[in-house]
Amino acid sequence: MWKPDRHSQQPLYEQIADHLEQRISYGEFPPGSLLPSERKLAEQLGVNRSTVIMAFAELRSTGIIESRTGSGTRVSATKWGVAPKHTPNWKRYSEGGGFLPNLPFMRKIREALAHNPELIDFASGELAGDLAPNDEIAALMSEHRYTSYLGYDNPQGYIPLRQALVSYLEAHRNIRTTEASVLVTSGSQQSLYLITQCLLSPGDAVAIEDPSYCYSLPMFQSAGLRLFRLPVDRYGIDPDDVRALYKKHRIKMVFTNPNFQNPTGTVLAAERRKRLLDVASELALPIVEDDPFSLTSYDGAPPSPLKAMDEIGSVLYIGSFSKIAASGLRIGWMVAPRAIAERLADARQQMDFGLSVIPQQVAAQFLNSAYFEPHLERLRMQLLFKRDLLVESLHRELGDLIRFEIPQGGLHLWCKLTPDIHDGKLLEEAVRRGVVFVPGSVYGSDSGFVRFTFARARTEDIPSGIARFAEALRATTDG
Amino acid sequence: MWKPDRHSQQPLYEQIADHLEQRISYGEFPPGSLLPSERKLAEQLGVNRSTVIMAFAELRSTGIIESRTGSGTRVSATKWGVAPKHTPNWKRYSEGGGFLPNLPFMRKIREALAHNPELIDFASGELAGDLAPNDEIAALMSEHRYTSYLGYDNPQGYIPLRQALVSYLEAHRNIRTTEASVLVTSGSQQSLYLITQCLLSPGDAVAIEDPSYCYSLPMFQSAGLRLFRLPVDRYGIDPDDVRALYKKHRIKMVFTNPNFQNPTGTVLAAERRKRLLDVASELALPIVEDDPFSLTSYDGAPPSPLKAMDEIGSVLYIGSFSKIAASGLRIGWMVAPRAIAERLADARQQMDFGLSVIPQQVAAQFLNSAYFEPHLERLRMQLLFKRDLLVESLHRELGDLIRFEIPQGGLHLWCKLTPDIHDGKLLEEAVRRGVVFVPGSVYGSDSGFVRFTFARARTEDIPSGIARFAEALRATTDG
Repeated sequence: MWKPDRHSQQPLYEQIADHLEQRISYGEFPPGSLLPSERKLAEQLGVNRSTVIMAFAELRSTGIIESRTGSGTRVSATKWGVAPKHTPNWKRYSEGGGFLPNLPFMRKIREALAHNPELIDFASGELAGDLAPNDEIAALMSEHRYTSYLGYDNPQGYIPLRQALVSYLEAHRNIRTTEASVLVTSGSQQSLYLITQCLLSPGDAVAIEDPSYCYSLPMFQSAGLRLFRLPVDRYGIDPDDVRALYKKHRIKMVFTNPNFQNPTGTVLAAERRKRLLDVASELALPIVEDDPFSLTSYDGAPPSPLKAMDEIGSVLYIGSFSKIAASGLRIGWMVAPRAIAERLADARQQMDFGLSVIPQQVAAQFLNSAYFEPHLERLRMQLLFKRDLLVESLHRELGDLIRFEIPQGGLHLWCKLTPDIHDGKLLEEAVRRGVVFVPGSVYGSDSGFVRFTFARARTEDIPSGIARFAEALRATTDG
Repeated sequence: MWKPDRHSQQPLYEQIADHLEQRISYGEFPPGSLLPSERKLAEQLGVNRSTVIMAFAELRSTGIIESRTGSGTRVSATKWGVAPKHTPNWKRYSEGGGFLPNLPFMRKIREALAHNPELIDFASGELAGDLAPNDEIAALMSEHRYTSYLGYDNPQGYIPLRQALVSYLEAHRNIRTTEASVLVTSGSQQSLYLITQCLLSPGDAVAIEDPSYCYSLPMFQSAGLRLFRLPVDRYGIDPDDVRALYKKHRIKMVFTNPNFQNPTGTVLAAERRKRLLDVASELALPIVEDDPFSLTSYDGAPPSPLKAMDEIGSVLYIGSFSKIAASGLRIGWMVAPRAIAERLADARQQMDFGLSVIPQQVAAQFLNSAYFEPHLERLRMQLLFKRDLLVESLHRELGDLIRFEIPQGGLHLWCKLTPDIHDGKLLEEAVRRGVVFVPGSVYGSDSGFVRFTFARARTEDIPSGIARFAEALRATTDG
């Protein structure tokens, strides 16, 4: 006889409801017939009576059965059997898959921004509209009249874009590669998704930085990875910690963002870079280097990537246009051993059949154009200006209530609030006053840390945004 | 003491090699030291000696250990310990993830096309360059000077495109929906990927058509789904088969392509459509309706979709521009209950952070433009012309060797070869003669079926392509 599966993730009462519905649908209990009593069924199935009661309630809610006090539970005569209409239980389907929903704080911030476009936005990790090369892109799109045929593209990416990236990587990042080792992706996000889905298996241990935007990506948990932390100090992560994690947990991969790390803004020290690569080669451990911010370096001398020093192919290098040009282009890239690039391209074909050719053409034209360098120059100056304004505002409005290092590149400023506060409460008070930020816990930190993105807000809003934040902080600590 | 895990998917010898490497790296066996003998290690670990031999061979291949006849196996003195360099074992990483590689036939066809662009292509399921609205898209891109800001887009899709799709769906497909229920995707492929990943769990049973392009998608196997077949006859699938599969295997979802089915070209009969929806509502079973070909209907009267008759929300409807405009735009859409559309948008944010705004703008402009209807009209006429040319050529070159129904829409013609042939051999002979097609086994059929796509090849190449195919068939059957 059928019994519910106690090892299944599906709750017992749902299994019982499904089972009963199946028996009813097969005609075992015809319309109008009496079902066994709750007590008897509980006995037969070896479950508590309350479980059967919940199963009956579920079936009643769909109209398949009816209960009347004193006369037991019957299969519905009217609803079942005479062409009943059943909408699929979409709720259950949407809980079925492998993808965890996004973090509550991130959803809350997204919803707050969607409901009130006037919010001062220190939360979205992207450029403001006036920092993006909109005119340049518009000009390129009119200059290069679109002519090529829009058929399925090579799933590894549009070849002229890969060629442009090879030149870009050599000129700007000191990375020598070939188009066969470059994979074009839908931003860094898709590079990370492909790596976590295709090169790692559920249960694998990986090391991520602490704090790190990786915590804000349910992607890692969705892939079933076990996450271990590499604390970030003012010089970045410590390579000895990598070795220790390898010994203890047999980590399979290290995820790092060595240049203007998100959220802390830290640059990995040169001596540690060398040691990190040594550890990687000693342990044959792959390193995923996410490098979206380097070119924002305010002094115009971006730190060199790990990949430029990687002699044996330990590093998967990830880059993107999102933080230096336009996140809405959705153009990112990965440099990987050729076999890995091809493997990931094959897998991504199953996911989305590759990217649209149009933004890839635009990206290639932009990289090759005379607009690119002046855009970067202007971007750096504007970011520096915004950073200074934020730093001033923070000093003025918050004084001793806040501690931070001044970042030398990137879009973010990371700080510790000295009062003891509750992340969620502070966010709520801030939203009420028309300003949003990202609580540090999103990046795996304890309560009391905050990431301010200064790239997204309008320059003129930065001082008033921080004034509102200061009010919110006072309201939180007073309360 | 450590023992290999016999329930792990990792082969025993690999586990042992990993374990030994770890012990060596921790200094348990210093450089130059002697390892236990194969026999002794096999005893300790409770495995066959041959397993240890394989583990040693693996370690020898990386240079960590060295064996000399008569003097046992030692940790390498030169390679290990003195700053050894180890590239990650990329091969093993690339075998680790959840994604199966694409089917060998599909890879073979792709490679053949990549190596010889002169091949006559009856294999790629897409439009020829001259059938795509290239001039129209170029015109739209110059007319609408690009101005909007390229920030991250709403992960459910660019709102003006969703609005344009709502109008399109009502006007052309008789589907009434709202933009909240529309999700913009990277073609049908991503819609299917999101459904299989987010609404189903590994081990779930689903029903797919036989034959069906679903077999050509390793996506279904990668998601760990159990596939059951719904035979397609000349009227499409039989709804009674759906009920039978539900009773037997408790299928969770049905995937169907009711209009000009790929590969057979079949249109699901009206009476069966009604019954299929009845069965779906009786069993509360979701139906995924993939509808990429309807608008190619040569008589200009596309069959109405299931979704237009779906009163209770059983149907997830999938559409795309790929087969009616430009596959390289990578624009598809799904119509789903609002909660499902939002859930899938949330999950896709983890995968790729949404689509580029540019092709979405182009798609919206195209749908709203005066170019759209005339393009469809011209497309239908050109496809009809190509179909007729293919049918004539097949009759002339192959006569009794082939049997098929003439499709009334879509890009493909499906046929059965009467001689007993070996799929792979035929494909090889065809490639040698400069023509490619897709063997029926890619769609789950027995040997001897062939899908010819007539939309992709140049019109003038169709007769000679079929003549070459006929030669290849003769060479295969003679051989």
